[in-house]
Amino acid sequence: MIPRYSRPEMVAIWSPETKFRIWFEIEAHACDALAELGVIPKEAAKTIWDKGGKATFDVARIDEIEAVTKHDVIAFLTHLAEIVGPDARFVHQGMTSSDVLDTTLNIQLVRAADIMLAGVDRVLAALKTRAFEHKDTVRIGRSHGIHAEPTTMGLTFARFYAEMDRNRARLVAARKEIATGAISGAVGTFANIDPRVEEHVCTALGLVPEPVSTQVIPRDRHAMFFATLGVIASSIENVAIEIRHMQRTEVLEAEEFFSPGQKGSSAMPHKRNPVLTENLTGLARLVRMSVVPALENVALWHERDISHSSVERAIGPDTTVTLDFALHRLAGVIEKLVVYPENMEKNLNKFRGLVHSQRVLLALTQAGVSREDSYRLVQRNAMKVWEEGKDFLEELLADQEVRAALSEEDIREKFDLGYHTKHVDTIFKRVFGNA
Amino acid sequence: MIPRYSRPEMVAIWSPETKFRIWFEIEAHACDALAELGVIPKEAAKTIWDKGGKATFDVARIDEIEAVTKHDVIAFLTHLAEIVGPDARFVHQGMTSSDVLDTTLNIQLVRAADIMLAGVDRVLAALKTRAFEHKDTVRIGRSHGIHAEPTTMGLTFARFYAEMDRNRARLVAARKEIATGAISGAVGTFANIDPRVEEHVCTALGLVPEPVSTQVIPRDRHAMFFATLGVIASSIENVAIEIRHMQRTEVLEAEEFFSPGQKGSSAMPHKRNPVLTENLTGLARLVRMSVVPALENVALWHERDISHSSVERAIGPDTTVTLDFALHRLAGVIEKLVVYPENMEKNLNKFRGLVHSQRVLLALTQAGVSREDSYRLVQRNAMKVWEEGKDFLEELLADQEVRAALSEEDIREKFDLGYHTKHVDTIFKRVFGNA
Amino acid sequence: MIPRYSRPEMVAIWSPETKFRIWFEIEAHACDALAELGVIPKEAAKTIWDKGGKATFDVARIDEIEAVTKHDVIAFLTHLAEIVGPDARFVHQGMTSSDVLDTTLNIQLVRAADIMLAGVDRVLAALKTRAFEHKDTVRIGRSHGIHAEPTTMGLTFARFYAEMDRNRARLVAARKEIATGAISGAVGTFANIDPRVEEHVCTALGLVPEPVSTQVIPRDRHAMFFATLGVIASSIENVAIEIRHMQRTEVLEAEEFFSPGQKGSSAMPHKRNPVLTENLTGLARLVRMSVVPALENVALWHERDISHSSVERAIGPDTTVTLDFALHRLAGVIEKLVVYPENMEKNLNKFRGLVHSQRVLLALTQAGVSREDSYRLVQRNAMKVWEEGKDFLEELLADQEVRAALSEEDIREKFDLGYHTKHVDTIFKRVFGNA
Amino acid sequence: MIPRYSRPEMVAIWSPETKFRIWFEIEAHACDALAELGVIPKEAAKTIWDKGGKATFDVARIDEIEAVTKHDVIAFLTHLAEIVGPDARFVHQGMTSSDVLDTTLNIQLVRAADIMLAGVDRVLAALKTRAFEHKDTVRIGRSHGIHAEPTTMGLTFARFYAEMDRNRARLVAARKEIATGAISGAVGTFANIDPRVEEHVCTALGLVPEPVSTQVIPRDRHAMFFATLGVIASSIENVAIEIRHMQRTEVLEAEEFFSPGQKGSSAMPHKRNPVLTENLTGLARLVRMSVVPALENVALWHERDISHSSVERAIGPDTTVTLDFALHRLAGVIEKLVVYPENMEKNLNKFRGLVHSQRVLLALTQAGVSREDSYRLVQRNAMKVWEEGKDFLEELLADQEVRAALSEEDIREKFDLGYHTKHVDTIFKRVFGNA
Repeated sequence: MIPRYSRPEMVAIWSPETKFRIWFEIEAHACDALAELGVIPKEAAKTIWDKGGKATFDVARIDEIEAVTKHDVIAFLTHLAEIVGPDARFVHQGMTSSDVLDTTLNIQLVRAADIMLAGVDRVLAALKTRAFEHKDTVRIGRSHGIHAEPTTMGLTFARFYAEMDRNRARLVAARKEIATGAISGAVGTFANIDPRVEEHVCTALGLVPEPVSTQVIPRDRHAMFFATLGVIASSIENVAIEIRHMQRTEVLEAEEFFSPGQKGSSAMPHKRNPVLTENLTGLARLVRMSVVPALENVALWHERDISHSSVERAIGPDTTVTLDFALHRLAGVIEKLVVYPENMEKNLNKFRGLVHSQRVLLALTQAGVSREDSYRLVQRNAMKVWEEGKDFLEELLADQEVRAALSEEDIREKFDLGYHTKHVDTIFKRVFGNA
Repeated sequence: MIPRYSRPEMVAIWSPETKFRIWFEIEAHACDALAELGVIPKEAAKTIWDKGGKATFDVARIDEIEAVTKHDVIAFLTHLAEIVGPDARFVHQGMTSSDVLDTTLNIQLVRAADIMLAGVDRVLAALKTRAFEHKDTVRIGRSHGIHAEPTTMGLTFARFYAEMDRNRARLVAARKEIATGAISGAVGTFANIDPRVEEHVCTALGLVPEPVSTQVIPRDRHAMFFATLGVIASSIENVAIEIRHMQRTEVLEAEEFFSPGQKGSSAMPHKRNPVLTENLTGLARLVRMSVVPALENVALWHERDISHSSVERAIGPDTTVTLDFALHRLAGVIEKLVVYPENMEKNLNKFRGLVHSQRVLLALTQAGVSREDSYRLVQRNAMKVWEEGKDFLEELLADQEVRAALSEEDIREKFDLGYHTKHVDTIFKRVFGNA
Repeated sequence: MIPRYSRPEMVAIWSPETKFRIWFEIEAHACDALAELGVIPKEAAKTIWDKGGKATFDVARIDEIEAVTKHDVIAFLTHLAEIVGPDARFVHQGMTSSDVLDTTLNIQLVRAADIMLAGVDRVLAALKTRAFEHKDTVRIGRSHGIHAEPTTMGLTFARFYAEMDRNRARLVAARKEIATGAISGAVGTFANIDPRVEEHVCTALGLVPEPVSTQVIPRDRHAMFFATLGVIASSIENVAIEIRHMQRTEVLEAEEFFSPGQKGSSAMPHKRNPVLTENLTGLARLVRMSVVPALENVALWHERDISHSSVERAIGPDTTVTLDFALHRLAGVIEKLVVYPENMEKNLNKFRGLVHSQRVLLALTQAGVSREDSYRLVQRNAMKVWEEGKDFLEELLADQEVRAALSEEDIREKFDLGYHTKHVDTIFKRVFGNA
Repeated sequence: MIPRYSRPEMVAIWSPETKFRIWFEIEAHACDALAELGVIPKEAAKTIWDKGGKATFDVARIDEIEAVTKHDVIAFLTHLAEIVGPDARFVHQGMTSSDVLDTTLNIQLVRAADIMLAGVDRVLAALKTRAFEHKDTVRIGRSHGIHAEPTTMGLTFARFYAEMDRNRARLVAARKEIATGAISGAVGTFANIDPRVEEHVCTALGLVPEPVSTQVIPRDRHAMFFATLGVIASSIENVAIEIRHMQRTEVLEAEEFFSPGQKGSSAMPHKRNPVLTENLTGLARLVRMSVVPALENVALWHERDISHSSVERAIGPDTTVTLDFALHRLAGVIEKLVVYPENMEKNLNKFRGLVHSQRVLLALTQAGVSREDSYRLVQRNAMKVWEEGKDFLEELLADQEVRAALSEEDIREKFDLGYHTKHVDTIFKRVFGNA
């Protein structure tokens, strides 16, 4: 977790304070259920809530105890006993540490997912606004980095919207994957604790009971969760790469917003670098790198080993914090992106008329020229534009073989930009609905 | 794709013959729609279906043409023209190669998903059968590879069932991710082709039109697809590792089925190695290795670059073929797994009574002994079993401090195995329902 | 292994024929050593060489036997016995299958490394030639995709040369990593075979005896090998990305060679896409994806498990074949790259004079202006060029505050391109030596 | 970077204080060289050393400035000016930020490598000690987790030593990879700074000048560095997995040292879990996860983009801190590992005599029995041991067909353990030399 790539809201989820608070709530809810079942006294459960509920857990004190016991949950329970008094002996009855730890991790991941969903929503809102703003801003579509046919800037935003909207659905599914809890004891048999305790605790905390757990909640869930974050990060990279390309000196169709006080370079004061989107490219790598260890975490030995734990201590906070930050950075970039329609037009016209070659090819075919001949005719004239800087329209009009198949009017009609944008509304309807 | 780790059914999806057949169907369906829209003659569309529908495409001939044109779709269309005759000029009108290629890839992935779903179902059936067979076969539960508390072999199968069932749902979702098609032209604007052609082709082929495409279908879909396969592979590894552990010489609670003619080792004839599950461990790595390149494929330049293509040529077939094979290998291993309940019992009793320590600890606490003292008392007696091979029950009965809190009857009752299996039915109901 | 991304020379290394030939040689060399030690008759060793040396091993027959024995080495030895006759019983004495398999794998990897070294050398030669050819071809250096200061195309080639030269050294080291053999028996103790057999076989086959093996050669060696291939692939991507950027329509400083018969697109005949370097970008991902499974292969259980084997069956051939192909594709691209110096000049001058801002900044500082003021002055004038299309030199000459510090001559001198290329020779000497 | 998996010595390398100190040293050494070349006054260089050398840089103040300038090096230089006074204007002349940042990163990595080398040395020392201690402690060698033939615990330690010794050599090579510096200006042409400055600074700081840089030092170097750390981590996992297996309840051939105050489980006080080696398994995953992003960092756009930077901010500290911690944790585990030779003997004898089957097989072959018959005979008797718990020696002595080939004495001799350990000294000499 790198401070400069962190937002406090997400960082707070992973603080010791939050963790101990969740531990307490799990234990206290379990006490309620145990009291209800008659296993422990109801007054004890009440005392635990009363004293623990308003207590501030002393992280330093817990660390101190853990230094001796080398066991974090025992350290916490010892500290809790200091706060609650004798009734603390009813806490954690029949439970195992992992009941607390695993349920807590999932609560943290659920909260993290909720925050990230808000981040995705901000990205979506920005993309939608910019998409409608530039629905009809024509620019050249490119494949292989080479000019192809006209499209609009709005379509670019719209496809990022559609992609991010899929990511939203994936994140909702991923959240569901890890919204489970387990209070099932040392090997998951509920030998020492009634399954109804698990049900009570999970319901109270917005989770679903894990149908069958061992000592731990199965890690295929977390693997799926982090894999999903990896996909979202890759989509962020996708948008970032587009903007980096647009900001290239030679292209310059858009720029990240450049605040007045900002210095682009210690050496070249005129430079305005797409540093935010470059940064997002790197952050995407950081998010993605958690996918493989999360997958490696799935195969635990028998009812559990603890190899996954150190991995999750790192990727739990780091990956969610980084992705959350990246989402908001991306949203900011999109919201404030400076778009240059005039440069788009300039680029579009760079090879005078060549972008219309596909239409001419089609027209020739439809006029009865064979596919091979049509291709040859178009390529012959296209090459003059490419290599000699000629104007494509003029060349076509002067090409007798072309003219034998197409009239001047026919040919001129092929150079109408409106031809390319006529279905933009259809696509927007598909993406944004009728709103 | 390694022949020994391949099943013909899945391999066939990726053959050139299958590919060209799909290409043809896309083109022919598109012709139907174009004819319906009046763009091309209806007879032409009919001729194309008539002649192409019964033709066998000559892979060698297409390769020959491609060697000259260096373009696969043009090579195919040229060959198609050889078959269909003059009406072939109406084929591919307004389309771009990627319309065909991308839609084809998705059709192949959908078919691959269907085959893999059948594989998952076979695994599920096997797990369910074995789970009920061994529902009450008690064995020691282990955490950290160390004996913990009793569980049953049925619960082990049940949790693998639940995990694989989640994978089934994930695979269904992943199938949906890539069940889209696009016939949207060079940069996705439908400039040269009516969106209704796309709708017709997709419907005819069981796909949904991609709401907004560029030249290609967005690769976040494929990233999600391969990430899902990576999770499934990790679950396979999870089962494989369990079986490998069970087959260890010192544990020997189960063995892969060993066919009479099979030789375990050229040097040690008595050896029966868990080679299938070791192999599955390796295959899981192979499936997983496609996840990162699939994620790296998401960020294409502008409306597309072709960097993703070579990656998909490899991981498309290799990953689906490998995972499909692994699912069936796993199913076979589970179906025929030789389980040794007597060895499970022997292992359970290895440390005479020690597995009941948790219960005794709890009983002491409930009898009013402080948590710290209870822990100390249990550990004191446990260590004698561990280090001196004593019997845990006898030691407890002889420990005056313990006896001060618990009667002999109380203590003996803590050594009842039924205590640990009393909720097995509850868990089975959660996993398998009331069936 | 994808045929279109394969060269026959490398593919041949991984054929069954090659594999069985190596198996035979290991066995036959071992017989020589065993005969020398008096363990088996010298005539037997001779017969084995005589009959096996000229035999063609029948792959189909071996497969047939393996289908029964389910053990590849036993199948081979059975077939060898069919060829050699009764003396075949002296073959494989005291050896274990892995002695043969692991030593063979390493021989294949060594040969693959040698072929890849030749590929690297071809890339190096191409880079060197093009570097000297364009040593003084000035083009704009870019950071963040934004124009920075002038550099030369030769320097670009030179740095790729230096990087690839490091890769050469790494590949030599990686080759050494896996150039070991082991004939040490079932668990590596040489219980049934004299260590001198291992020494003889290794020496005869150009390997070093593995100092301590188990049943297998330790896999940290292979992990290092594949990790090195991953680094080389990433360098290939580095060059590929540079060329893809240069070929962008708006940049167009270079193009992949475009053969006359080649068609760039089925729709847009004028398009010349950087498909080879895009392909290399994808191939780099394919090579890299072997790194993680190779790392996961290191931790084998005890003296060995066979989880690594399926992984190596895939990545052994696939990764070396792909990287080999990529190296030659890259070499071809570089050898024939079409460079456009005139476009480089055009791009350099896009922002009239702005590339010299750093020099002006420095001159101001050296003339006694504070860093902050210098920065402000340069930026003020730079912005006029950027936003209003003014000429930087003229603006500076007209800026009174600038002129207070620098004379016209001083300022003009800062716009000399030679200033930027004056150390090119120094750098070339560092990279290429005095050759 | 997780505090509980960190050692202060390594953490200190990555503190802001250390970073700014290195920045200062680079700038100050550069001033020396610039003064020597007559570019800046010698007194200025002296003043900078005098004032900056004894200053404590105020991290909070620098952060404050950066909040405005959004540029870290400018912020530092501004702060340095506050300390040094007017002569500060001579600092950073002709340099670019990356000259400082990249050279600093490499210095940090070199220091990190040195600390990790010390960690590797501690592991090596521990392994060597334990190897000699248990050189002749016989235990069963296993392949596939199944008993194979006897080996010794010393050989296990020896092979880990050999593997870690290779890692040492790799780490030395990796250190050399990144022990370069660059002071080459905005695009690496030395336009504004003499190459002799770079040489001076590098020499003063123990680095080699990067032969050809762009704005940055090429990232193939760092990719190789992190890939190497990934290999080392995998070797750590290899040792960890071995120990985890040894500590399994059913195997119990060794245990991690268990300190008196330590509690193994909140529920099962007798449990002694291999938590350190399980933890090492997880830490290995964390180290390895940096390899892919480091490879992805190689392909930067043109003379640089900044996508690598955020990645390195994370993996630079995190990966080195984690690996360093893991090395020392591993060393501690090995140093204090509790080995149980008596349990090794017990396990060895689990299948009465079966481990000698390979020797008997060989003896039969050498006595003239065909390979197939020998195999059949051995397997026949082995199965009786395996399935009926018979004694292998007794069965063989009673098998008439076996006795037809081998005398009682012959057979008994095959059951001598010394046969398996006779080459241990040879192997130790290979690994440890004659020391």
